[in-house]
Amino acid sequence: MIDKIQIQDKRFDLATGAGSDAIHKDPQYSYAVTQLTENGKTGTGLAFTLGAGNDLVCNAAKFYADTLKGIEVEELMGNFGQTFKKLSNEQQFRWLGPHKGVVHLGLASVTNACFDLWAKKRGVPLWKLLIDLSPEEIVNTLDLSYLEDVLTREEAIEMLQSQVASKKSRTGILEKGYSGYDTSVGWFNYDDEKVRENCKKAIDNGFTAMKLKVGSTDPKRDIRRANIVREVAGETSKVMLDANQQWTLPQAISICKELKQMNPYWVEEPTHPDDVLAHQSLAKAITPVKLALGEHVPNRIIFKNYLQTGCTSFAQVDAVRVGGVSEFMTISLMCKKFGVPVVPHVGDMGQLHQHLVLFNHIAMGHEALFLEHIPHLKQHFVNPIKIENGVYITPQETGSSCDLK
Amino acid sequence: MIDKIQIQDKRFDLATGAGSDAIHKDPQYSYAVTQLTENGKTGTGLAFTLGAGNDLVCNAAKFYADTLKGIEVEELMGNFGQTFKKLSNEQQFRWLGPHKGVVHLGLASVTNACFDLWAKKRGVPLWKLLIDLSPEEIVNTLDLSYLEDVLTREEAIEMLQSQVASKKSRTGILEKGYSGYDTSVGWFNYDDEKVRENCKKAIDNGFTAMKLKVGSTDPKRDIRRANIVREVAGETSKVMLDANQQWTLPQAISICKELKQMNPYWVEEPTHPDDVLAHQSLAKAITPVKLALGEHVPNRIIFKNYLQTGCTSFAQVDAVRVGGVSEFMTISLMCKKFGVPVVPHVGDMGQLHQHLVLFNHIAMGHEALFLEHIPHLKQHFVNPIKIENGVYITPQETGSSCDLK
Repeated sequence: MIDKIQIQDKRFDLATGAGSDAIHKDPQYSYAVTQLTENGKTGTGLAFTLGAGNDLVCNAAKFYADTLKGIEVEELMGNFGQTFKKLSNEQQFRWLGPHKGVVHLGLASVTNACFDLWAKKRGVPLWKLLIDLSPEEIVNTLDLSYLEDVLTREEAIEMLQSQVASKKSRTGILEKGYSGYDTSVGWFNYDDEKVRENCKKAIDNGFTAMKLKVGSTDPKRDIRRANIVREVAGETSKVMLDANQQWTLPQAISICKELKQMNPYWVEEPTHPDDVLAHQSLAKAITPVKLALGEHVPNRIIFKNYLQTGCTSFAQVDAVRVGGVSEFMTISLMCKKFGVPVVPHVGDMGQLHQHLVLFNHIAMGHEALFLEHIPHLKQHFVNPIKIENGVYITPQETGSSCDLK
Repeated sequence: MIDKIQIQDKRFDLATGAGSDAIHKDPQYSYAVTQLTENGKTGTGLAFTLGAGNDLVCNAAKFYADTLKGIEVEELMGNFGQTFKKLSNEQQFRWLGPHKGVVHLGLASVTNACFDLWAKKRGVPLWKLLIDLSPEEIVNTLDLSYLEDVLTREEAIEMLQSQVASKKSRTGILEKGYSGYDTSVGWFNYDDEKVRENCKKAIDNGFTAMKLKVGSTDPKRDIRRANIVREVAGETSKVMLDANQQWTLPQAISICKELKQMNPYWVEEPTHPDDVLAHQSLAKAITPVKLALGEHVPNRIIFKNYLQTGCTSFAQVDAVRVGGVSEFMTISLMCKKFGVPVVPHVGDMGQLHQHLVLFNHIAMGHEALFLEHIPHLKQHFVNPIKIENGVYITPQETGSSCDLK
């Protein structure tokens, strides 16, 4: 049974300019870390923040984690959906969300520690644990409440069941590796020359997809830099643009029409993440430019609204932003139903998500598109992700690769 | 200039059953209190929680309040909209929301302290300060960003300007008092007999509107109790039903159709507060039953979406949930534009909101409908609200009536 609980506030400084975007000028990448120990085995879970307030998330994680003391992890995970529902609706704490912000980030950290511990107890990598679960076992780890109008428990099980026979045909990805895309070519504060150099390096390193931060006060800067990336990357590479919520709706409409010329693969987070209807209007106004949304969407319910309006062509759910692995899988199932590919934002630097995208592809039948790659905290992990020739090498260590040194 | 900052974590136990609803079975009414002192005058601001985690909100309030040290309050409030925008977008802290949950509650507490201090410095009640401001001065205290598609600065000023000539004709409310409605007749855990008794008392005390908590596991309990309230209240009184997010969309549709028979004035918070589209579907499905929404809506952007879908017939914005008085006024302006009355949820027990509804009516031309009345913390305030014959007596003390003993 879980007999030891530790919460740690870990903050890491970045090199100048790294991690910067139109809104977040000077982030300090930080984790609220939950560790749950059962019979000497320790599960590690992360939530991600940009520095200030990481302590608040740690406090919220402690509140939830303390309730798990004395429980056997196998018993816990057999119906984790019930636990998730209970914790996320704790009747006083719920007022602070519900299901969003600091408290939900705290829950993510705890949930992720539970899944990590579960995989370690079974002696397998998380992706292996998840793809070997039966459809019922997977759905037992999910809380589908408030999704009744689009995804019932029965339907979720059926969706997974319908993929079981073809699962084996999709395991080739384990050998081949999951493609990555490079976000670090074009952080906001990098000058044009550095962007150009980084793009060349990315191509040399085998990447065929990369992302530029936009949302400058002067739209001409965005357009100039987008053209630089396109020029170096060539016509066959995918180039994504990320505004990090900087634009108003009228601005976004106007700028996206100009950016259309360099053929972006997607435009990401154009405006405020709570504004579902603005994204719906924008998506219509700038067709065929596609939107990628979800980095700041805190839960399955808002993702449901995003999917219902049809505004998002790529769902960027992040398992260290929503309530952890459990809610990530719930949202992935909804995305599958709505025919929207899942391309996670990697607050975890890709450590956890490399497992989850393999599961999404193999067990859920999601397209194996690509996974964001941000290397800045690599040296701090016990088992850092390995990327070769632009491709994630499938992790073989037990658990979810989230242990920090 | 502001030279002293104090944050206090205040929690108050309630009598058995008081404050209970379908989701929150055993709340402990609590305030994260910000106090800002300038030349010996102290402004008090509140955010409201249900107990656990109130300390997190206090920590967030401290983070924001510390940035105000050394600033003159008159200077601060002359363009408070800029300060609100800056604080709510602090580049690291913003990640924890943005504009929702613990950090936004913390901001509410600080914002409310600023407005309280401003009114005290001018030696007037908050309602008087606000109704005497010019349209430009009011709009200078607001952050309208991300609302560009529905409400520009120019339009906001024009809307207020168009009400200036008729302001005087609406000041009669100051003498007459603002009507209250009684929420404490039917807390969830009260038995049928207590509900019946409380309704009788409410009628005896002059109330002509009252609210019952619904969302029981057995819908028959809801229907039976709703009929009790209607029976005691009579046909001419208004009876509101509040499900506190308990229902799924399919449940809400089915139950609201049954509750229609007792002619509820509104049904409140039927399902999850993030689910804008579910409320849109529900509103259509149960016409002519009306929805009252917003108690858990954290910011102006989500309120915008609610208004755009036309699902809410009453906006229950709460100035101790959204980012304080400033964002409350922003949302009230949007509601005016969309023709939706503002009927605040009173996490503050009505202390602050009694000022704000007077402002909404007199300066903005909102209908003076009624204001929720919940008396449970009355004895803890220096100047508790006064209600006589079901009507709020206009407060005359300086500030926003939020000082706690």
